[in-house]
Amino acid sequence: AAGSSGGMMLEDLPKEISEALDELDSCQREIDALNEKASEEILKVEQKFNILRRPMYGNRTEIIARIPQFWLTAFTNHPQISPMIDEEEEKCLQYLRDMVVDENDDIKSGYKIKFIFEDNPYFDNNELVKDIHLPYESPEDRPSVESTEIKWKAGMDLLKVKEKKPKRRGRAWADNTVSFLEWLTHGGDPSGDEIAEILKDDMWPNPMQYYLAPEVELEANGLSDE
Amino acid sequence: AAGSSGGMMLEDLPKEISEALDELDSCQREIDALNEKASEEILKVEQKFNILRRPMYGNRTEIIARIPQFWLTAFTNHPQISPMIDEEEEKCLQYLRDMVVDENDDIKSGYKIKFIFEDNPYFDNNELVKDIHLPYESPEDRPSVESTEIKWKAGMDLLKVKEKKPKRRGRAWADNTVSFLEWLTHGGDPSGDEIAEILKDDMWPNPMQYYLAPEVELEANGLSDE
Ligand SMILES: [Ca+2]
Ligand SMILES: [Ca+2]
Ligand SMILES: [Mg+2]
Ligand SMILES: [Mg+2]
Repeated sequence: AAGSSGGMMLEDLPKEISEALDELDSCQREIDALNEKASEEILKVEQKFNILRRPMYGNRTEIIARIPQFWLTAFTNHPQISPMIDEEEEKCLQYLRDMVVDENDDIKSGYKIKFIFEDNPYFDNNELVKDIHLPYESPEDRPSVESTEIKWKAGMDLLKVKEKKPKRRGRAWADNTVSFLEWLTHGGDPSGDEIAEILKDDMWPNPMQYYLAPEVELEANGLSDE
Repeated sequence: AAGSSGGMMLEDLPKEISEALDELDSCQREIDALNEKASEEILKVEQKFNILRRPMYGNRTEIIARIPQFWLTAFTNHPQISPMIDEEEEKCLQYLRDMVVDENDDIKSGYKIKFIFEDNPYFDNNELVKDIHLPYESPEDRPSVESTEIKWKAGMDLLKVKEKKPKRRGRAWADNTVSFLEWLTHGGDPSGDEIAEILKDDMWPNPMQYYLAPEVELEANGLSDE
């Protein structure tokens, strides 16, 4: 049966083993069907709660808009995100008005992280988006990222400047040494993108805890050099 | 309010901002409560399906027991696990009778991966377990691993031998160069343990696909040098 795809010749196996493999195949199909049913049921629960969350997040966005530099403050208090933001980027992120994490409606295919900016002296975009596609179901389906191309104003390209001075303040995130804007505009495989996961699963569900992060904690982490 | 923990002095903020922060706090509590409810509902679905899966996996174990070296074959056909198994470990894993992934009943606190061995010339244990504890709820709760100490028979310690010959066939797994038994007995932080995740989420749900993996695919991956 599997011979057509160049696999193991099942018909050459001893009878008792090929019988066991047939039984295993039936058993595995039952398990697969049950796993599929479990995934569908969990997805329905997640979709239900995403709909319930939507008006609450809408309300939150309006409240956050009344707090100057809410997101930048939360970012610079976060132990993993703070070290990615260098001094020039910090000035630029003062124009960040809102962040939104928007899961795809099917949930499993990925999510978008949207950064909404005021008019600013750095670039013409009002929205920078990192659109993360995660593979599901078919094996040909590859993880991918689409990022908004930043339309820098003349002489303001922070990423170009960065190429000339590779050192950044603070510790580098994990093994990488990408800055926040480098991360935001970086394509490639999002499978191990811990910053995207932190923003989606840690920052977005409760940014207020980071906005209010006590300074003592920051000192303990060695991040209070500013 | 947050002042007691050394945090930002909320009372020093402009009135309109401290009012916005109060509203944000209420809004955030609503979101937290909804997220908590979502987690509980998803957990219940997962627990329900774990109970439904149990008899199917029990049945599968009995069928697999009739197939010699089922797990070793599946492991050596798996693109990430195969390169971790060197020649001596492959001989040792011929005595592996069963693998079981056992999620903790609460699911979120972790899982055990159990390897059940026949009597063998390498060690006295009949079961080697990697017990993975993942943090949840309290921040003091740290990820941790407990692994069975291998009771090697005299002169058979494969890990001791390994210290003297650091090179292994095949490509190293990710940035690490741990062998399968080094991984199995390794403690430390399990947060990024991709091998544990592969065994739990990829191998355990459907090992038959790897047992039957067609040789052409292995050749394409450059793993057919044996
Ligand atoms: Ca959406
Ligand atoms: Ca259990
Ligand atoms: Mg704001
Ligand atoms: Mg067996």
